[in-house]
Amino acid sequence: MTKIKLALCQMNVVDDKKANLKKASQMIAESVEKNADFIILPEMFNCPYSNDKFIEYCEEEHDSYTLNEISKLASDNNVYILAGSIPERKSDKLYNTSYLFDKTGYVIAKHRKMHLFDIDVKDKITFKESDVLTAGDEFTIAETEFGKIGIGICYDVRFVELARIMVENGALILCYPGAFNQTTGPAHWELLFRSRALDNQVFCVGVAPALNKDATYHSYGHSIVTNPWGEVLTQAREKEELIICDIDLNEIKKVREELPILKNKREDLYRVLF
Amino acid sequence: MTKIKLALCQMNVVDDKKANLKKASQMIAESVEKNADFIILPEMFNCPYSNDKFIEYCEEEHDSYTLNEISKLASDNNVYILAGSIPERKSDKLYNTSYLFDKTGYVIAKHRKMHLFDIDVKDKITFKESDVLTAGDEFTIAETEFGKIGIGICYDVRFVELARIMVENGALILCYPGAFNQTTGPAHWELLFRSRALDNQVFCVGVAPALNKDATYHSYGHSIVTNPWGEVLTQAREKEELIICDIDLNEIKKVREELPILKNKREDLYRVLF
Repeated sequence: MTKIKLALCQMNVVDDKKANLKKASQMIAESVEKNADFIILPEMFNCPYSNDKFIEYCEEEHDSYTLNEISKLASDNNVYILAGSIPERKSDKLYNTSYLFDKTGYVIAKHRKMHLFDIDVKDKITFKESDVLTAGDEFTIAETEFGKIGIGICYDVRFVELARIMVENGALILCYPGAFNQTTGPAHWELLFRSRALDNQVFCVGVAPALNKDATYHSYGHSIVTNPWGEVLTQAREKEELIICDIDLNEIKKVREELPILKNKREDLYRVLF
Repeated sequence: MTKIKLALCQMNVVDDKKANLKKASQMIAESVEKNADFIILPEMFNCPYSNDKFIEYCEEEHDSYTLNEISKLASDNNVYILAGSIPERKSDKLYNTSYLFDKTGYVIAKHRKMHLFDIDVKDKITFKESDVLTAGDEFTIAETEFGKIGIGICYDVRFVELARIMVENGALILCYPGAFNQTTGPAHWELLFRSRALDNQVFCVGVAPALNKDATYHSYGHSIVTNPWGEVLTQAREKEELIICDIDLNEIKKVREELPILKNKREDLYRVLF
């Protein structure tokens, strides 16, 4: 299966977990109507993006209202769903964690955000995830019927090593649920997704919450798909929007034959080790 | 010294070595008049970009007309010059080699292109450097009065590991003399220079020959400087042009404090080793 219909659910996340789940469920239903094979939700799709809300909204994996709902939606609709991320509690620690469900509703991969977002751009944006969250330590590459999918979360996209490691381990699509802001978004979002795709000759997918002006954190939105030639296939604006995007994994093979970057790496001189 | 005036000599390279040296000399003189601190020539600035011409134009380092001329221009004008690249012969091998001259005309670094350009984009562009050239095996980071400068050549810019290694070893400016073509240029040139700069929070400089429609290889031109925030500071078009660009290395420190990407790398989990 090389042709895949992606659905990027750029949902408006509000300060009400049940409302967020209802919105996710509606957008998933709409995606299924449009014959999506793989549905992707944004980072922190069930929770406003702020440290105090992460504490309030967090759930434990073995008893998670959110994950149970998404699992049911995956199996009921016979569709892959990447549950962008939720605040996950594990004993006394919190993580920013993404769960990938297969068509039977089974979790086949989980990724805990590996690079925490600690930023302080003068007079523009300050955020310190590490005040509350703990970083994950695992690389996440999931086997699916489409091939291997690598998962990172938001700030993880800035690190060239992570993308390289996922691709060298077979990932053909890199998915980064993410919530860039109104400073770093316009400056870097598209550039990062284009360059990760180009440098690694894969498809890259970013799915963000819509801009909610009532929230304390203003998401940039702009959910995006880029192809192995570094082009933008589709990109949302800031508002709530469901994006359907067809990709063909055969493009990867074609680009890698024409421009054999991965083959021409000098592995005799350097390696990204992990 | 943190403020540096760069001069990017996007010269028209013709099939006449002496004419190319004369043109380089004129553009260097003009750069000096404009108070440039660091002058950069394009890839293969003394030779048309084609495998047969590399064989015809090559020179040995110990007895090189081209390098002697550039050395004299550096010392006469008390200025740093990066002699983009020339076809270098060493016993029975040919390399695509860049030489960095200090203000006394002394070669303080040389870089042999590490990744050879073998590309075959259907009906668009085919070129196979490895038919004639041998790849270099050394990373090149030069100590200057501005700080450390990393040097790659053209196709080398596509490899994230090389840039990372140069930056982890202290490079503040990455210089890539390069000659992209009319297919890969519009698609990738600006994207690559913006992303290498952003991902590594350094300045990146690309200097290309002008488009010469009489030549067999049609250079994209578009000599460029990008800053640590991933922005384009200046970019030429296709024609012959001298670009003067002021950069301030203090910007690197500021961006790295605001957005501590290099500090937030997970060196406990991965490393680019060489």
